[in-house]
Amino acid sequence: MGTPIVSASLVTASPPSRAQQIRSFLQQHDLQAWIAWRPDELVMLSGYFPFWGASLLIYFADAEPVLFVPQIEPRDHIPTGLRVQEYPWGDLKCSDPYSVLVSAVGNELVKARVEGEQVGMNPSASRSSLPIQAAEQIPIPEGFAGQLSALTAKPDAQGQAAFADLYLRKTPDEISAIRQANRVANVGLQVFFESLQPGIAEAEVAAAVESAIYRQIGREGIFHSRGWAMVQSGPNSADAGRFNRSTGRRLENGDLILIELATCVNGYWSDLTRTAAVGSPKAGLEQILAIVRDAQQAALDGVSPGVSAGHIDALARNLIAAQGLSSFFTHHTGHHVGFRYHDPGFGIVPGESATLEPGMVITIEPGVYIRERGGGARIEDNVLVTESGHETLSRIEGSMQP
Amino acid sequence: MGTPIVSASLVTASPPSRAQQIRSFLQQHDLQAWIAWRPDELVMLSGYFPFWGASLLIYFADAEPVLFVPQIEPRDHIPTGLRVQEYPWGDLKCSDPYSVLVSAVGNELVKARVEGEQVGMNPSASRSSLPIQAAEQIPIPEGFAGQLSALTAKPDAQGQAAFADLYLRKTPDEISAIRQANRVANVGLQVFFESLQPGIAEAEVAAAVESAIYRQIGREGIFHSRGWAMVQSGPNSADAGRFNRSTGRRLENGDLILIELATCVNGYWSDLTRTAAVGSPKAGLEQILAIVRDAQQAALDGVSPGVSAGHIDALARNLIAAQGLSSFFTHHTGHHVGFRYHDPGFGIVPGESATLEPGMVITIEPGVYIRERGGGARIEDNVLVTESGHETLSRIEGSMQP
Repeated sequence: MGTPIVSASLVTASPPSRAQQIRSFLQQHDLQAWIAWRPDELVMLSGYFPFWGASLLIYFADAEPVLFVPQIEPRDHIPTGLRVQEYPWGDLKCSDPYSVLVSAVGNELVKARVEGEQVGMNPSASRSSLPIQAAEQIPIPEGFAGQLSALTAKPDAQGQAAFADLYLRKTPDEISAIRQANRVANVGLQVFFESLQPGIAEAEVAAAVESAIYRQIGREGIFHSRGWAMVQSGPNSADAGRFNRSTGRRLENGDLILIELATCVNGYWSDLTRTAAVGSPKAGLEQILAIVRDAQQAALDGVSPGVSAGHIDALARNLIAAQGLSSFFTHHTGHHVGFRYHDPGFGIVPGESATLEPGMVITIEPGVYIRERGGGARIEDNVLVTESGHETLSRIEGSMQP
Repeated sequence: MGTPIVSASLVTASPPSRAQQIRSFLQQHDLQAWIAWRPDELVMLSGYFPFWGASLLIYFADAEPVLFVPQIEPRDHIPTGLRVQEYPWGDLKCSDPYSVLVSAVGNELVKARVEGEQVGMNPSASRSSLPIQAAEQIPIPEGFAGQLSALTAKPDAQGQAAFADLYLRKTPDEISAIRQANRVANVGLQVFFESLQPGIAEAEVAAAVESAIYRQIGREGIFHSRGWAMVQSGPNSADAGRFNRSTGRRLENGDLILIELATCVNGYWSDLTRTAAVGSPKAGLEQILAIVRDAQQAALDGVSPGVSAGHIDALARNLIAAQGLSSFFTHHTGHHVGFRYHDPGFGIVPGESATLEPGMVITIEPGVYIRERGGGARIEDNVLVTESGHETLSRIEGSMQP
């Protein structure tokens, strides 16, 4: 739990329900329906997390949503409240399932008397969440979005941006799901802290973390739990501002060890980073870790409704700059999170005037990486903006702290 | 090792080198260059496995290839023989890196005096391999392919299919890499067989398998090693013809246990399945396992250059049909594999007249799934077509067999 900061004058009403937010978006953009096939859009619009990534939802402004799933999709995790239609799939059944799907979608739109220009769609899979079957990119073929776009309006940039805004304000059910993803991620982080000893390889630490996360399947309603853990030690931690991966390097006394951890539980995401030391950090590294801790705490403490993202960024960035280290903090202070590893929406970056609202979940993740000192540090938490301040979803009572 | 079958009359020459294959493709389609950005295309064209999935290669017919990487890309795994250019990246550095990239690509084409209609590209990320950073879809945004396509020809369906044919014949270096992926996958399979006991959960078995695979990083030149293990036990194994996942179900004596395992090592893929029993299989399950073993062996034994894919499929399918179980073998007998979990190209399916050639690597994976009997089985290997027969890359001397 973070320290709630009460800013009474800025308290706003509870976020509207998901259905209210979607209907309002459709109304504002004169749309009668939205076609979704990206896993993160399906989760947001319906709570349904696709297995194959080949499902498609028509969300109507004034009728029950229709979900098209391939015949081979598992059915036991499809939520109620959706009309489910299956389409053929498999190399022995149908050589071109997507043409069948496009026809079926067209028929539904005709039945609902919805015209092409009244239908919106995001044609790109870029940065979308992975489906449950995460070992390859979404199977949507070339030409599919084009075929569908013949049924839809070409949404203007403004419409697309407005759709992205739907990711920003999470509902209580969604917050519970993101809280659960963070609880599971913390199971992995416990393993991280417990694994740190000289001689163990980065990849061995990361493998143990991911394994602990996968093992949560079957507990507390969890049907999918997968972590992507990336551990960088010693000099490798100085790369962590550019990329995160694990190598075979073995930990040494005096190293900083950084873990970047993406966790997906039932379609909802946590994005965390911890940095620890093995033994006493080498000269110059203790300072990096202390500054990053202070900068992260300063930004966390500032999270409250009505505060601008740029202000939060400055709370961390100015503290690092005051130590003469601004050139070593090379990235954003944070971003929205929950439906994806990185949700769309405004960043927690210098000069950003957009303000925090209750229901938003953001990361706070300043970092300092100094190759010349042989190390880098980042600490990242996932923070819910509440009506009176904030709650740090990723700090679990009783769990080990960095 | 499989049993080599010598079919002297059908022996063909060694496959041409990768560069020869690409140049021949470009020439046949009047192309001066191919633009690649899908991870599997990058691996195939250059041996380079991208970290972020935001790299782009121009492969010229008559000049050194140019590789564009984001500033934040790690450099230590970029092969020699490529001219590397970086482009800006990061929310503090460049708000629209892809526009910069598209301009830079255009400049290179102008410098090389290559016109738009002489440049080919695959615009879709569908089913592409994941990059090293595998926790979200490729970051290529909406509009990027469109911007690039202004620089390229719109390849006809024939050209696209011909490009897909480049995946089919693997070179000796590529075969070595796929062999290594299969060796690593077998480390995971050992853990699978060793884990099987009543009371352990499917997800616990799968987590241990993935962990063993991740831990291979740092050994024998391995900079990336990731497995996706899916374990289905008892009645859940009867679902394995439609989907593969792990649940919290605990193994019981008499169960069939099926593991589907995708493994990526340094950008090259293995795709394996094993089915085992805990204790003595329940009534009716022993027969399923025996038939699948026989069907798989029959198809494996038939793999040889000049043999049609349809014939290989029939070897497995007819044997299952002879037992009256054809309706329970619901999918293909196999597919190409190596640059992706599922490479493009002809399937090992009924009636397919395309023939096997030396250098092809295919899966052989018949399965029988009978819900009424409470179980299913599939056995899948990765098989190299050699000049004289075949070699089963996924059967490692001394490793445990199903």
